[in-house]
Amino acid sequence: MVQATTLPRNEAGIETAIGILKQRFGDRLQTSAAIREQHGHTTTWIDNQSPDAVVFPHSTDEVAEIVRTCAAHKVPVIPFGTGTSLEGHVNAPAGGVSVDLMQMNKVLAVHAGDLDCVVQPGVTREDLNTHLRDQGLFFPIDPGANASLGGMAATRASGTNAVRYGTMKDNVLSLEAVMPDGQIIRTGQRAKKSSAGYDLTRLLIGAEGTLGIITELTLRLQGIPEAITSARCSFPTVDAACQAVMMTIQYGIPVARIELLDDMSVRAANAYSGLSLPETPLLLLEFHGSESGAAEQAETFGQIAGEFGGTDFAATSTTEERNKLWQARHDMYWACLQLRPGARGISTDVCVPISCLADCVTRTQNKAVELGLLAPMVGHVGDGNFHSLLLIDMDDADEVAKAETFVGWLNDLAISMEGTCTGEHGIGQGKRPYLERELGAATRYMSAIKAALDPDNIMNPGKILP
Amino acid sequence: MVQATTLPRNEAGIETAIGILKQRFGDRLQTSAAIREQHGHTTTWIDNQSPDAVVFPHSTDEVAEIVRTCAAHKVPVIPFGTGTSLEGHVNAPAGGVSVDLMQMNKVLAVHAGDLDCVVQPGVTREDLNTHLRDQGLFFPIDPGANASLGGMAATRASGTNAVRYGTMKDNVLSLEAVMPDGQIIRTGQRAKKSSAGYDLTRLLIGAEGTLGIITELTLRLQGIPEAITSARCSFPTVDAACQAVMMTIQYGIPVARIELLDDMSVRAANAYSGLSLPETPLLLLEFHGSESGAAEQAETFGQIAGEFGGTDFAATSTTEERNKLWQARHDMYWACLQLRPGARGISTDVCVPISCLADCVTRTQNKAVELGLLAPMVGHVGDGNFHSLLLIDMDDADEVAKAETFVGWLNDLAISMEGTCTGEHGIGQGKRPYLERELGAATRYMSAIKAALDPDNIMNPGKILP
Repeated sequence: MVQATTLPRNEAGIETAIGILKQRFGDRLQTSAAIREQHGHTTTWIDNQSPDAVVFPHSTDEVAEIVRTCAAHKVPVIPFGTGTSLEGHVNAPAGGVSVDLMQMNKVLAVHAGDLDCVVQPGVTREDLNTHLRDQGLFFPIDPGANASLGGMAATRASGTNAVRYGTMKDNVLSLEAVMPDGQIIRTGQRAKKSSAGYDLTRLLIGAEGTLGIITELTLRLQGIPEAITSARCSFPTVDAACQAVMMTIQYGIPVARIELLDDMSVRAANAYSGLSLPETPLLLLEFHGSESGAAEQAETFGQIAGEFGGTDFAATSTTEERNKLWQARHDMYWACLQLRPGARGISTDVCVPISCLADCVTRTQNKAVELGLLAPMVGHVGDGNFHSLLLIDMDDADEVAKAETFVGWLNDLAISMEGTCTGEHGIGQGKRPYLERELGAATRYMSAIKAALDPDNIMNPGKILP
Repeated sequence: MVQATTLPRNEAGIETAIGILKQRFGDRLQTSAAIREQHGHTTTWIDNQSPDAVVFPHSTDEVAEIVRTCAAHKVPVIPFGTGTSLEGHVNAPAGGVSVDLMQMNKVLAVHAGDLDCVVQPGVTREDLNTHLRDQGLFFPIDPGANASLGGMAATRASGTNAVRYGTMKDNVLSLEAVMPDGQIIRTGQRAKKSSAGYDLTRLLIGAEGTLGIITELTLRLQGIPEAITSARCSFPTVDAACQAVMMTIQYGIPVARIELLDDMSVRAANAYSGLSLPETPLLLLEFHGSESGAAEQAETFGQIAGEFGGTDFAATSTTEERNKLWQARHDMYWACLQLRPGARGISTDVCVPISCLADCVTRTQNKAVELGLLAPMVGHVGDGNFHSLLLIDMDDADEVAKAETFVGWLNDLAISMEGTCTGEHGIGQGKRPYLERELGAATRYMSAIKAALDPDNIMNPGKILP
């Protein structure tokens, strides 16, 4: 495993706070090794750094009570959702208390007329969409994992639909949060827009729990489109596929999803999902609109694809065929693992201006070959965002070192192209060294904000900031 | 005029800083009464509080030099664009130096392939769109006034297109800014999305110059749609019009503009712009898409409107007719002033969940009648945002007092409906009393951020925060 920085522990404070919380929460505070370990990271190659206790609150007031107790004794507080974050966000490098929010999982209100809803942070995106379906509504952000909405906000998640519907930052109207001093605040109202004061909503989104714990979210919803058309098209090269994507976006086609799989990923999908796609770079698309509108979008894309050497273009509006294609996309992680049974899959993500995407992907593929690494790639290419899934033998120290080199090199490449070291996974522990390279002096003001709101550094310490 | 709070002046510091800046900037620092007064507010009913000097920088480095000089002597710095803000944002209640950014007016880069551009803060939205037109691109945010893009970001502006394209917060990829200590930072790269660290971009957007001066903006652009269809439809009541709007939004029609004029506004438009619209509540709409897509949207809207008693529905895709309609909308301020020649027009804005809009507008109209005030209303109703334009005899103290009562009552009504006291105008000086009523304890954390980044309170003091 990759070593994570440890921070000094406040042993006496931790013991006292856990004692108080145990009295208060009884069986809803757990200290078994298994539960503690499960609440450190589970999805990265970074060492597990377990919290000292895990507490399961049922209400905002209980979260506030936990934070006040921890604040009084200067004990770290680490918010926890489904644990699907990818950069060590939930590790406890200074120990402390993990606050598992999954029992706060109620949909509190759906305002269909206003296209919004109010949810607790432990509601998952699939639960929410199941809840909404009967009302003809959906929440569009889909990061792949069935993550909790609180966690998705905390990491500024996005995923396949972002090219049309934006990221979490665009789909949260307001938040309720418990701040580092235990105060409960509401960052906004239910109006669709506001110019009232500093945008604390956006400040908490992507703060990865370092500035407060999100305890309630008011989310913007969408009507389920009348028609959904899916399409796929194969391309001779990544460059040709990216050119087609650029033209599609520039042409103003309101594509809802546009995903790129490189040849290695297509090979994995064919084997795992029983498909027989040409094993060259592939675009998977989805179009939302009226019957005729969605069909027209697909047709126009087909024409654009043809200009860039696209072949095997196929569009469908039947649910079954569409689901098969997107299921294969969602299963890519498992499919890719089968390319090298026994290997660990480490997903890293960058995002670059779309004009640099083809170059960035091609150089990334070459770099993996040069280092002797297996790294199939999938991307939310409408945004210039892609993931390399490194397939690593974690027992081979040399290979792990090469993989670390690869990740660092890729982050620096993306930054040099005016891109970012993380499009949607976040900084957590894993990408901390790159934040300052990307944003320079701006990080100083992030640190100043952190120090102002959380002077004792109790909220998810050791994340994001240097 | 309405009295504005004054703040203590640092006379010695102001004199010293202006002396230093005069040496450095020569004729680009002005202290004449006319220029100083022009750089206090020009568009509100709040007393003019002129700065002590106005300086006209040409570069980010010059802005940084100005801020460093003012910071060293604890002198207020007030950023200035076109002066079209509506809540006293550019007043100088503690004196100080107005930084007029209108000579920083270059479009630095257009990346057509990436649908973004980089501009200086003094570029106006009309200048930018003129610059972009040949490349088939446009910047969608249209707050009415030909405002500067720096000012639009600082006030989190939006306007007629927001229902489809969002507000400034959704259309800025990153900013360069000079912070209160004179440090130049960049808040992000050119990637379409990022999860790297705290969202300083969104923190500066809407901060009204209280946390730093925006010196460069990277903006998201749109392709000019293949087809634009405009439509209008009259309704028997505001409620019927709002019901039609709600259904249109819920139906998922990607309407680009949907504006409501009440009967008094329609009467004003008829008289001023030589139209002959039925003098009942009116919706003006615009649809963007392919030829068939835009036409289909208009047709679907027409059917929805019919269900809610809409009459005189007319759609057009000819540029001339479209421009005539939207010119009338843009001229509403002048048209309404003609309803009461000699009166001052005071625009106030609130935004509520769309399900509350009809009720909010109707009660607002009744309240104006009750107080004997003339207050035609226009609204960006797709967002639940509307403006009352109070037509006031500023020499009649009783009427001014009633108008103040009206504005306060309206803000409280909007807040009570889970809405906001300002959808797009900002807090400035005028709405400061309402911010805490709306956001409660959250304002404390805004103050903490302000104190951390600007400990001497030199950046646009007396704005936003209590």
